[in-house]
Amino acid sequence: MNAAPPVVILNEPQLAENIGAVARVMGNFGLTDLRLVRPRDGWPQERAWASASGANWPLDNARVCQTLESAIGDLQLVLATTARPRETALPVLTPREAAGRLRSASASGQAVGLLFGGERAGLETADIALTHGIVTIPIDPKFHSLNLAQAVAVNAYEWRLTEGDAPPPRFREGAPPADQAAVLGFYEQLEGELEAAGFFHPAEKKASMVRNLRVAFGRAQLSEQEVRTLRGVVTALAKGRGRVLAKLAASRAAEAADDEADEG
Amino acid sequence: MNAAPPVVILNEPQLAENIGAVARVMGNFGLTDLRLVRPRDGWPQERAWASASGANWPLDNARVCQTLESAIGDLQLVLATTARPRETALPVLTPREAAGRLRSASASGQAVGLLFGGERAGLETADIALTHGIVTIPIDPKFHSLNLAQAVAVNAYEWRLTEGDAPPPRFREGAPPADQAAVLGFYEQLEGELEAAGFFHPAEKKASMVRNLRVAFGRAQLSEQEVRTLRGVVTALAKGRGRVLAKLAASRAAEAADDEADEG
Repeated sequence: MNAAPPVVILNEPQLAENIGAVARVMGNFGLTDLRLVRPRDGWPQERAWASASGANWPLDNARVCQTLESAIGDLQLVLATTARPRETALPVLTPREAAGRLRSASASGQAVGLLFGGERAGLETADIALTHGIVTIPIDPKFHSLNLAQAVAVNAYEWRLTEGDAPPPRFREGAPPADQAAVLGFYEQLEGELEAAGFFHPAEKKASMVRNLRVAFGRAQLSEQEVRTLRGVVTALAKGRGRVLAKLAASRAAEAADDEADEG
Repeated sequence: MNAAPPVVILNEPQLAENIGAVARVMGNFGLTDLRLVRPRDGWPQERAWASASGANWPLDNARVCQTLESAIGDLQLVLATTARPRETALPVLTPREAAGRLRSASASGQAVGLLFGGERAGLETADIALTHGIVTIPIDPKFHSLNLAQAVAVNAYEWRLTEGDAPPPRFREGAPPADQAAVLGFYEQLEGELEAAGFFHPAEKKASMVRNLRVAFGRAQLSEQEVRTLRGVVTALAKGRGRVLAKLAASRAAEAADDEADEG
């Protein structure tokens, strides 16, 4: 089965040595596509190649992205690796379960990815809200400082193990999931309209309100058609307001003209 | 199950940084007992502690041995990790199979260990002959330069999984799905507002449009809280109009009052 392996996305990685070590384990387990979101020390970094032990190809072809959104825009299933518990409603998977999901999605033609946070901070909850599930490695809660390349290694290892016995592609009645760029476009439209409607109050709650909405929609893995439909839903619900405003503006202009006429 | 975890034996390790990285993954996966056979640069080495990220206990208690025989003398089951094929009649196990064997031996009271070769040379066949089986990680034959700590990580991870591969209990998935009555209430609200906004056209398509929307939301398995939030979203989008109108009316009233004041 020629399912494409998951893209590895490193969000704000710090040490070039760790990026090189990630490339090395990618080479070990047959992964090739590496994306770096805002690497702290810039890119390229010689030390990455030095620590890759010859696994140069993921580094040579690494794509540097300024935003996580652009790094995952073309993917249809993204899983976020984190060791910290999160208050999100996303499914929580073991690396083994995650590999199974990635494999079956990939086998059915979807572009899939694994997202890893930087060495110090890991992933923000807002980053995780852009994905479809959380992968957590069952490490000892007494010592959960897992090296970045080790986290990649465990997941890449589990991916490789699925090559022997790929489960059948998941049954889906409809079309495959939209890519994340389309989904993000919908989120932005929705959030913009909600902002305009005064939905986000108090203001300090906006970030978590946005996150919770994204997580709920993320779980649905919307198809392209569904994204278009939901955009239409938001427009239909919101446009009444615009129509009314336009009407009001027109009537005020008319009144103003009347006033001028009266004065003249 | 209180089975003692496997002892980790590094045969002629070279870089102190790698020994520290091994201690770190041991800490991650609950292993504690580290033994070093003829470490190249002597022992202790400060750089090992520096790269252990706080997993000091395997290093503090590491036992240095002059021979492999003495390092494994007290063990009852030792498995040797190697990426190279060997001409031995020992069983060849995957890390998963190896972890199963180690677990069941340990559970029955045996002292067990995992043996790893040095960075450059790996294990000699004579070393392997002192063990009970070969563990081989299924890496890509095109790039089998696996970092020492990564090899330990994969095996330690598999050991830990034999404790049960459920995510740690502190990870809690979101709230359970709302009951269907709540979900249907949301659907009806949404569809009512869409009807009012003229969304369902042509009319004969309404049934399938409704069905498609419901399917998309249904896949998300919304929680009760999410249903409430989405009801608020629909209200905000649809009735934002009312709020905007009220605001406009208020500001017009204020302007009118200003105008009167100016005139007065």
